[in-house]
Amino acid sequence: MTQDSTADWQARPRVSLRLVAQAAGVSIATASRVLNDGPDKASAETVLRVREAAERLGYRPGGAAQALRRRESRIVAVLAAALINPVMATIVASIGHALRAEGLVMALCDTHEDAAIQDDFLTEMQAQNARAFVLVGAVDSPGLTRLRAAGAPLIFVNRPDPGPAPGGAYVGIDNAAAGEALARHVLALGTQRAILLHGSLERTAGTERARGIRAAFAAVPDAELIAVEAPGLDQLTGGLQAMAQVLSLRDPPRAVLCLSDALAYGAWRGAREAGRQEGFDLYGFDNLLFNDWVAPWLSSVAVDPAAFGPAVLAQLPAPRAGSRCFLPHRLHLRPG
Amino acid sequence: MTQDSTADWQARPRVSLRLVAQAAGVSIATASRVLNDGPDKASAETVLRVREAAERLGYRPGGAAQALRRRESRIVAVLAAALINPVMATIVASIGHALRAEGLVMALCDTHEDAAIQDDFLTEMQAQNARAFVLVGAVDSPGLTRLRAAGAPLIFVNRPDPGPAPGGAYVGIDNAAAGEALARHVLALGTQRAILLHGSLERTAGTERARGIRAAFAAVPDAELIAVEAPGLDQLTGGLQAMAQVLSLRDPPRAVLCLSDALAYGAWRGAREAGRQEGFDLYGFDNLLFNDWVAPWLSSVAVDPAAFGPAVLAQLPAPRAGSRCFLPHRLHLRPG
Repeated sequence: MTQDSTADWQARPRVSLRLVAQAAGVSIATASRVLNDGPDKASAETVLRVREAAERLGYRPGGAAQALRRRESRIVAVLAAALINPVMATIVASIGHALRAEGLVMALCDTHEDAAIQDDFLTEMQAQNARAFVLVGAVDSPGLTRLRAAGAPLIFVNRPDPGPAPGGAYVGIDNAAAGEALARHVLALGTQRAILLHGSLERTAGTERARGIRAAFAAVPDAELIAVEAPGLDQLTGGLQAMAQVLSLRDPPRAVLCLSDALAYGAWRGAREAGRQEGFDLYGFDNLLFNDWVAPWLSSVAVDPAAFGPAVLAQLPAPRAGSRCFLPHRLHLRPG
Repeated sequence: MTQDSTADWQARPRVSLRLVAQAAGVSIATASRVLNDGPDKASAETVLRVREAAERLGYRPGGAAQALRRRESRIVAVLAAALINPVMATIVASIGHALRAEGLVMALCDTHEDAAIQDDFLTEMQAQNARAFVLVGAVDSPGLTRLRAAGAPLIFVNRPDPGPAPGGAYVGIDNAAAGEALARHVLALGTQRAILLHGSLERTAGTERARGIRAAFAAVPDAELIAVEAPGLDQLTGGLQAMAQVLSLRDPPRAVLCLSDALAYGAWRGAREAGRQEGFDLYGFDNLLFNDWVAPWLSSVAVDPAAFGPAVLAQLPAPRAGSRCFLPHRLHLRPG
């Protein structure tokens, strides 16, 4: 087999409707009716024959031509802030699964929290007539501002719209309520002093979580909450460095409430390397897939990842600015 | 702001070349030359003016129309078998970064090792005139067979083409050599008996790794390698159940060579829950991001994830069937 270059490949003709019609022994008009207009436009036997031929030859209605003609596409653009985070990968998997059940195709982008990457993909997918834009952790960006203003179908997942006003629907947990529930649990154990270990609070998920935790502590007389900020590196390294601050306190509280499991992983390493991992109870958010396997010391606020897909799908036909779909959360306690 | 439905959105006109030309005060032909044919087709000042107007208005050459006219696209389709695996997410990030530096856009799909999902995305991206297909862990499928036969530009990453004959380029480590190097290291420590803990060996990365490990043990007189197969669940659960088999051996070898870190995570949990985690030295492949944080007990074969992007990019213009680009690997030893 000779191997074409990429350019040659793109110049190749694709399987035509004419070829499919010939193979199926029907007219082009009939083949088109079956493949483009739906199965009720021909006899069952003809439908079967045309579809078999199309499948065998690898025919697809030309995506670009079809998208252009109908201004619609099977593609839903999904943007994730950090696929390296297994919780985000799981959410994305759930969304992909739900879209697929509806015959839609997820085209995914890892934005790395970078406005330029986010905008490049938004613009490219807009040019491809993507049906909607699902942002699993958006950053504010000029492209997002433009789509918001244009009334594009936007669904923000796990982190609300980072802009000044919501430009689409939100699907995720009620982060403030989750923070409050976690803090109440810790307080109910008799813990009066705790660390709030947080990263940047510009991201609204963290802001809301911290707000809920603070509210619960403020409601208890004599309870003390010491905030320690992780430096703005990645969350693992940030958690490690923040734990060094905690360890340098004269009488550090035993309970450490981390605003994400990644921060807690970093904090645990910091405690372990100081030989003090037994001295702290760590709490996190996200319930990372690996917790049950290698982090049995961590309790974490969990949401069923499989809940995301159906919730996003429910918003898809017409996501409304400001509408919020809160998924249920629960506190996953470490064993023992 | 009124919120349009998804259907309304797709029926909206996009910013036209005419609008850009008007805003820039040039003819449509001039605007088209600048935006579609390149900057050397007009004066520097005109180029600046047209680009500024296009940027401000959010104009993009209509992706579908352009792709159709030129049979080319900025999109490179990237398929990953399991984005939940952080090592795969890191490889994908490296590829996305490299493509972006060339002005290309990565459209990503998580195939979940499912041939139907893989084929659906391959076909959709083919219809969108994707420039090439990069498969980070492919499964064999009818769609892949068709693309192979058509000479489509295919690049297989981390796992060679699963088909009977290579239909594209391979970028990844030399798994057999890596397995052999790991086993030699273990043998050099004076270990004469070891467990080979593996999942399905239908995937060629595992097959090759096992082959290398077996070769190294076969070369040492009296060395003993006991193979234990993890059941075909996910690797974490599989590793857990395989470790139960190991623990039931009368005199289990201390060294456990796992063909992936996910298997090792499962094995460690199995040992821990039996109170025997101190009794085993665990080895893996992939050097997952989280190892340094929560799995300090694990040694693992590592490859620099940043090496993938440039290597894939180098193959992109014309990936050749059967060509292999081996990335360097090293053994990342646990501290202490």
